[in-house]
Amino acid sequence: MIGDRAAMLMFDTTLTELYAAIQDDLDVVRGVFDDELASDLPFVNEFCETVRSYRGKMLRPAMLLLAGKACGGITPAHHTLGAVVEMVHMATLVHDDVLDGADERRRRPTIRALSGNVAAVLLGDYLISHAFHLCSGLNEPFASRRIGAATNVVCEGELLQNRHCRDVALTEAEYIELVRRKTGALTAVACELGARYAGADERVTGALAGYGMDAGVAFQIVDDVLDVTGDAGEIGKSLGLDLRLGKHTLPTIHCLGQAEDRTARELADALSGTVAIDRAALRGWLAGTGSIEYALAVAESYVKSAVKRLDVLPPSEARSSLAAMAEFITRRTF
Amino acid sequence: MIGDRAAMLMFDTTLTELYAAIQDDLDVVRGVFDDELASDLPFVNEFCETVRSYRGKMLRPAMLLLAGKACGGITPAHHTLGAVVEMVHMATLVHDDVLDGADERRRRPTIRALSGNVAAVLLGDYLISHAFHLCSGLNEPFASRRIGAATNVVCEGELLQNRHCRDVALTEAEYIELVRRKTGALTAVACELGARYAGADERVTGALAGYGMDAGVAFQIVDDVLDVTGDAGEIGKSLGLDLRLGKHTLPTIHCLGQAEDRTARELADALSGTVAIDRAALRGWLAGTGSIEYALAVAESYVKSAVKRLDVLPPSEARSSLAAMAEFITRRTF
Repeated sequence: MIGDRAAMLMFDTTLTELYAAIQDDLDVVRGVFDDELASDLPFVNEFCETVRSYRGKMLRPAMLLLAGKACGGITPAHHTLGAVVEMVHMATLVHDDVLDGADERRRRPTIRALSGNVAAVLLGDYLISHAFHLCSGLNEPFASRRIGAATNVVCEGELLQNRHCRDVALTEAEYIELVRRKTGALTAVACELGARYAGADERVTGALAGYGMDAGVAFQIVDDVLDVTGDAGEIGKSLGLDLRLGKHTLPTIHCLGQAEDRTARELADALSGTVAIDRAALRGWLAGTGSIEYALAVAESYVKSAVKRLDVLPPSEARSSLAAMAEFITRRTF
Repeated sequence: MIGDRAAMLMFDTTLTELYAAIQDDLDVVRGVFDDELASDLPFVNEFCETVRSYRGKMLRPAMLLLAGKACGGITPAHHTLGAVVEMVHMATLVHDDVLDGADERRRRPTIRALSGNVAAVLLGDYLISHAFHLCSGLNEPFASRRIGAATNVVCEGELLQNRHCRDVALTEAEYIELVRRKTGALTAVACELGARYAGADERVTGALAGYGMDAGVAFQIVDDVLDVTGDAGEIGKSLGLDLRLGKHTLPTIHCLGQAEDRTARELADALSGTVAIDRAALRGWLAGTGSIEYALAVAESYVKSAVKRLDVLPPSEARSSLAAMAEFITRRTF
C-alpha cells in the first residue's frame, strides 16, 4: 500500500488517463443522472445536490462504459445504464451511512449528519426508486430485470452483513460470499449490461459479468483494509468504523485464526463489543499476523482472475483500460 | 364513526362480499408475492414470513384487480401487478415503522421492534427491489415505468411529510398535496394499471387513476382520524403517534384554525413538541371544534368524487364493487 499524497496524485492522474476515452460519455452519464433526479420540490433538489457532491470516481459507470466500448461500442442505453448503476450505488451509500451512523463522506457531512436519519432513509428510497424509473425508460425490460435481480442480491448481502454483526465465528468463505452479494453483484451487472448492450454474445457477456464480480470483490476487500490502514483525511470518510460496528472483515478474520491466544481473545472481545479498541491497537495485532498483507494478496488474486476473464475479448484500448482499472484497485489508497 | 366490535365484523363481512368475485385472483396474487420473495438464505425467508403476517386487507391489489375486471377482464399481468403494488406498500410500511419508531403492526411486533432498525431499513430495501424485479418480468417496460414514477412521488410525499414535521403552519392544501403524493400516487397507479392491462383506452385509464387517487386521499384522511379516535386493540397498531411525532394532519389543522386562542396555543405547543399531550386531551380539543366531523366530511367528498369517476365505465358488478370499496373507506374503524 502506498499511503502518501504523491501516490494518490499519481493514482488520480492514471485514473484520469484510463477515463480519457470515456470522459465525454461520463459527462453524458452525469447529465442523465441529474435530469432523472430533478423534482418539482425545491428542497428535494437541494438534497440531490448534496448527493451529487458524494459522486466520486464513478467506477461502476466507468466499468459499464468501458465494457461497452470493449464489446462493440457505447450506445445511448449505456449512458442511461451508467446513471442507473451510479444511482443504485448512491442509494446504498446513503442508507449505509444511516446503518453505520457515519458522519463524513467524501470530506462532506453525510445526509444523516446534515438532515437526520429519517431524511436519509427516505432519500435513499428516492434514489432507488429513480434508478428503477430511469432504467424502465429503456425500450425493453431486460436491463430492469437484471438490475432488479442484482439489487435483490445486494440487499441480501447487506442483510447477511447485519446478521453477522459481532459474529466472531464468521469464516473467510462466508465473508467472501457476503462481499460477492453486497458489492460484487452491482459491479457484475454493470459490466454484464455494458457488454450486452454493445451486442456481445452470451459467452462474452458472462465473462464480463465475471470480471465485474471479481473486480468488485477485490474492491471491497481493499475498502475493508483501508478502513484499518487508510488516512481519513485522504479518503474523506469516517474510518475505523468496521471494528466499532462489529464488522468482521478479511484482515480480522485472518488475524483471529493466526494470532496467539491472548491477541485472539482481545480481538474477539473488541469484535463482540465487550471492550473498546482503537485503530492503532488493531493495526498492531494485524501487523503481528501479516493479516493486511494476506487480505491484499487475496484481493490481488481476485484482480488476476478479473483480468484473465478479459481474454475472451479481442485486444483493444478499452480492454486494456478494464485490465488497468482492476489492477489499480489493490493499489489505491482512497 | 362506528367504533364497536359488531361494526367491525359487519365491515369485515361486507369486505369479504366485495372481494368474493376476486377471491381466487387475490390468492394467485399472494402466491406470486410469496414466490418472488423466496431467497436461498433461510433467515431472509423468516423475515419475509414476518412481513407476510402484516398483510391485511390487500386494498391495493383488490382495487387493481377490480379495475381490471371492470375494464374487460383480469390477466396474468394483473396478478403480477397486484403483487407488485402490495410489495411496494409493504416496503413503505416497514420503513415507516422505522421512521415512526412504531412497535406494533397488525397486532404483531414490527420488524424494527423484533430485529432492530438496521434490519428493517434493509428489509424495506429488499421489498422495494423485489417489487421492481417482479414488475420488470412483464413483457414490456410500461408498468415498470409507471410504478417507478409512482414510487418517485411516494418518496417525495414522505420527504414532504418529514419536512413539515412539527410545522404548525402547514395548511390544509399542503396537507392534501402531501397525502396525494404519499398515499394517493400508489392507489392511483394500481387502478390505472388495472384498467390499462385490461385494454382500457386512455380516457377510461385516466378516470380509473383519478378514482384511485381520490380513494387513496380519502383512505389516508380516515387513517389520520383513526390515529386520534381509533382503538389500538381493534386496529392492531400503535396509535396516537401523529401528534407525538409532530405530524400535523387534517383534524389538527382544522382545529388549530377554529379553536379559541388558549386551545390553539396548547395544540401548537403539543405539535411543536414543547409540551407532551395525550390522546384524551387532543380528542377534547377536536370535539370542541368539530374537527373529526370536518375531516370525515372532507374524506367523504373525496369518496364521492372517486365514485363519480366510475361513471366512465359501463355498469357491472366490478364497477359496483369499486364504488362500494370507496364508500367503505370512510366507514371503516380499522
